[in-house]
Amino acid sequence: MSFVYKADPVRGAVWAELFARQMPELPFRIWPDVGDPREVRYLAAWQPPDEIEVRFPKLEVLFSTGAGTDQFDFSAIPTALPVVRMVESGIIAGMVEYVSLAVLSIHRDWRIYLEQQRSGHWQTHRVHPAGSRRVGVLGLGVLGRAVLERLSGFGFSCAGWSRTPQRIEGVECHAGPAQLPAFLARTDILICLLPLTDSTRGILSKPLFDQLPRGAALINVGRGGHLVQEDLLLALEEGQLGQAILDVCEPEPLPPGHPFWTHPRVSLTPHIASMTQPETAVEAVIGNIRRHRQGLPMIGLVDRMSGY
Amino acid sequence: MSFVYKADPVRGAVWAELFARQMPELPFRIWPDVGDPREVRYLAAWQPPDEIEVRFPKLEVLFSTGAGTDQFDFSAIPTALPVVRMVESGIIAGMVEYVSLAVLSIHRDWRIYLEQQRSGHWQTHRVHPAGSRRVGVLGLGVLGRAVLERLSGFGFSCAGWSRTPQRIEGVECHAGPAQLPAFLARTDILICLLPLTDSTRGILSKPLFDQLPRGAALINVGRGGHLVQEDLLLALEEGQLGQAILDVCEPEPLPPGHPFWTHPRVSLTPHIASMTQPETAVEAVIGNIRRHRQGLPMIGLVDRMSGY
Repeated sequence: MSFVYKADPVRGAVWAELFARQMPELPFRIWPDVGDPREVRYLAAWQPPDEIEVRFPKLEVLFSTGAGTDQFDFSAIPTALPVVRMVESGIIAGMVEYVSLAVLSIHRDWRIYLEQQRSGHWQTHRVHPAGSRRVGVLGLGVLGRAVLERLSGFGFSCAGWSRTPQRIEGVECHAGPAQLPAFLARTDILICLLPLTDSTRGILSKPLFDQLPRGAALINVGRGGHLVQEDLLLALEEGQLGQAILDVCEPEPLPPGHPFWTHPRVSLTPHIASMTQPETAVEAVIGNIRRHRQGLPMIGLVDRMSGY
Repeated sequence: MSFVYKADPVRGAVWAELFARQMPELPFRIWPDVGDPREVRYLAAWQPPDEIEVRFPKLEVLFSTGAGTDQFDFSAIPTALPVVRMVESGIIAGMVEYVSLAVLSIHRDWRIYLEQQRSGHWQTHRVHPAGSRRVGVLGLGVLGRAVLERLSGFGFSCAGWSRTPQRIEGVECHAGPAQLPAFLARTDILICLLPLTDSTRGILSKPLFDQLPRGAALINVGRGGHLVQEDLLLALEEGQLGQAILDVCEPEPLPPGHPFWTHPRVSLTPHIASMTQPETAVEAVIGNIRRHRQGLPMIGLVDRMSGY
């Protein structure tokens, strides 16, 4: 019985050390040095290898090393193989930090003040109470809920939208396509934390932007595929959107010469909102291996029908 | 009996309306239209007028419209006249927002990513867990404590320093000159929230910077007078400090051509970290007038010996 890691090898070395300490009975191997393929029961990968069922005939669980599994081609993964997303405290903490930073920077006019500095201009702008700033999160999974909890602590007026109805203390929750318009109409700062699926691809597009209050801001920390890039550029040009903070795009890295690089109202970061921390990731994976052996449900198990 | 307001007249109009509703029995006047000067019992001012005791012989309380009173010339204010700082929830919330934004932007390399964007460069930098980032606050008054409470919530490793010993849950508290070196030696991100007094003027200077870990960051949200500007420029040049975020400077506005305007590792905002919100400011002042009439101690009463 063995465990194979197939992702960034530098991080892999840290995983190996942590596994050796915390689960020494399970041999840990870093791709491509997989040992006897028939021994492989667990695979953690950013991208699984081709013909996974031929290569590892006794594989029992496929772990994604990322918070999402949209990088997987599910048609190439046997339907009986359990696929598990990464749900770990490092990803959550990183996302809460990034989104708090992004929302506060919009709320407190950070971009405008730094521009003023560059042009040698000293001018104050009114501070609005957080309670008058309506923040809305698309996607109420573990990350969306954690983000809303922290933003509520600052006193922002918080709402969320999800496919199925949810309840979160102090947050106005909307669900399903029917309640999307009301959610958008009350949202000054929109945060996308949806999983990328067939039904969410391209959701950040002109029809959605047009339902936001004029001058609203967009923060995309979901996936690049959620956004229709031309529609964002048009909405910024027309003033329907005031600014955008994008941590993800399609493709990544963003190609040279793309208008996002130089747009004065787009802030761009290279997919760093939230990164798996090896310590907490290994803890989550080992916890799930123990659950799997005991026949308990694993945390982050992907529903192949909904895609997340 | 009357109340005189002597500060920004636009805000004054909002104060007038709130006073009319909440304390209609007290005539409210906006400088210079003060009515009968012998009727004036309360004065709220950013700068009191000259010869205050001659002009308003029956004045009972002087309220500062700011969180500090360092803009007052105490030698020109009768020692028997109570002086009250502004302690109100709007100032506290604004400061917590600004400092959270500033700390998160340092923690998550925001300045570096925006520079990378401008130069069309896609590169990730390691995310450090908040717990490995040592934040330190100079000054443990109402604002310092509120800031530390919020930063602790993000998991930062938090410490504080004050003149007299304090206790704050989850925060390593240091006090007095003897414990300043130990506080500085463990502080990666230093936040100045001290009152400006004779003993704190110029405290942010080379001897202090030299005691921080190399590459530390400075956030000054106290007063411009806390900082020795040439020492900051030198520390940035030598790499002893990695960056500075300054909301205050001396004088304000910063003069044209000052090196802070264009310094790549200085972020400058025009004294906007925290502004009094008329609604909460009037609530605080009216509360203190009621306390004064009932012979109760007023909140924010300044100790003329310590200067705050």
